[in-house]
Amino acid sequence: MMVEIPDSHPRKKSLLSRQKIVEGSLEGLLADSAMIAHGRGEAFDYLLGERTTESARLAVREAASRLSSAISPVISVNGNTVLLAGEGALRLAALLGCPIEVNLYYRTPERVSGLLSLLEEQRAKILEEPVPSGLEGDWRESVTNVPLLGGSADFRIEGLEGPRSHCTEEGIGRADSILVPLEDGDRCEALVNLGKEVIVIDLNPLSRSSRMATVTIVDEVSRAFDGMLAELISNPDCVPSEWDNANAISGSLDDITEFLREKKG
Amino acid sequence: MMVEIPDSHPRKKSLLSRQKIVEGSLEGLLADSAMIAHGRGEAFDYLLGERTTESARLAVREAASRLSSAISPVISVNGNTVLLAGEGALRLAALLGCPIEVNLYYRTPERVSGLLSLLEEQRAKILEEPVPSGLEGDWRESVTNVPLLGGSADFRIEGLEGPRSHCTEEGIGRADSILVPLEDGDRCEALVNLGKEVIVIDLNPLSRSSRMATVTIVDEVSRAFDGMLAELISNPDCVPSEWDNANAISGSLDDITEFLREKKG
Repeated sequence: MMVEIPDSHPRKKSLLSRQKIVEGSLEGLLADSAMIAHGRGEAFDYLLGERTTESARLAVREAASRLSSAISPVISVNGNTVLLAGEGALRLAALLGCPIEVNLYYRTPERVSGLLSLLEEQRAKILEEPVPSGLEGDWRESVTNVPLLGGSADFRIEGLEGPRSHCTEEGIGRADSILVPLEDGDRCEALVNLGKEVIVIDLNPLSRSSRMATVTIVDEVSRAFDGMLAELISNPDCVPSEWDNANAISGSLDDITEFLREKKG
Repeated sequence: MMVEIPDSHPRKKSLLSRQKIVEGSLEGLLADSAMIAHGRGEAFDYLLGERTTESARLAVREAASRLSSAISPVISVNGNTVLLAGEGALRLAALLGCPIEVNLYYRTPERVSGLLSLLEEQRAKILEEPVPSGLEGDWRESVTNVPLLGGSADFRIEGLEGPRSHCTEEGIGRADSILVPLEDGDRCEALVNLGKEVIVIDLNPLSRSSRMATVTIVDEVSRAFDGMLAELISNPDCVPSEWDNANAISGSLDDITEFLREKKG
């Protein structure tokens, strides 16, 4: 299945991400439409130049400061997020001291447990790596202690029906600030309506999730996690700002317009 | 599997197309990455307003006139095209009196025969329908007589290696003008290098196929087929123009920029 992609390929990272999604799908870790969602993301990332734009960098910084200022932050992950950025999510959760909750729109017990197992594998891999610079001290203990939730849902998100409403009390239920990469618009709206601070990572700046969120990071999910980690390492005392999310989204639309303008040459 | 989508849903057509791709994938008719390709298309179609733009309409007209002026035109189809627009391809082939060739980048005998069977089903469905206005006369005979090629590849596209180079002599081999919706960039380039006129349907105006083609229709594949059919019915004597494809692509980029501008409000 794995096709060798030469290092010289200009879009190597994008193609490797695509392979991860195709393989995760073949392994039954993803819902039927997860590959279609990934393709949409690929297109938007292409139009953003497959890089973290300046407006995204500001959103990454704001998100990092809000999560580190929250009382009970949580990182909610779906299948695509675990496959593309599970290690990044674990590193960020270790630094924040917060749980990760596997929370699926199309929830099945098999997929939840498969994704929790994959997160455990990713955790083991991080523990084998050298401790990242700036994270000395009890880094390995922090990584080891990240609670991985979602296996037994004992709580419901008000305003939603059916399996998509299920969550854990320890994670999403009691959180005041939720990082939800690649989230469905309905769920994003329900979380906002509960008064929670909702930080979305979404490559489509015009999606309903992007427009509903408190802070929207318009960036590829693994770059966004890496960016938040780097921000918290270099600037551990960062504090939330007055944040105009509509203005931030507008900045991402400008980034795409600028990309198209350059391509017209 | 089929989820009921209310008629009132503003994006009903897009969601129905997505279901067709998901189901075709589950039935084994598509390569692993076909759903990802569809997702990319969804994103670009969204950015074009999910409609045939004026610049696409001009490309549709040019494509129709070039295909009807060709000596041996052929319509090359892959899995996504058959699933999304197989009936449209059959109607256009009937009107042009040209063959359809199932030609897959990731060719397997099972997928080729599965797609040929699906085209036969689509043909049967067209034959049960009332004859479209403007297509009286021997319409049903024309539909019945469309050769469906690709089952036994007896020719190779020069400049390509492996299964992706295989084609039929009766179809792509001897064609002077090829309509290739959703084509891979390498194959598009190889066909152009053989001196053939290559008409591409691709929602990404910046893809290599789009930039390589003689005429690029930046439109959703079923809308493009319907548009070409309508053009040939209303204007059967249309003739090819001097065509500046770079200018046409630039027009599609402008369409996206305009969409983003409107969304910024």
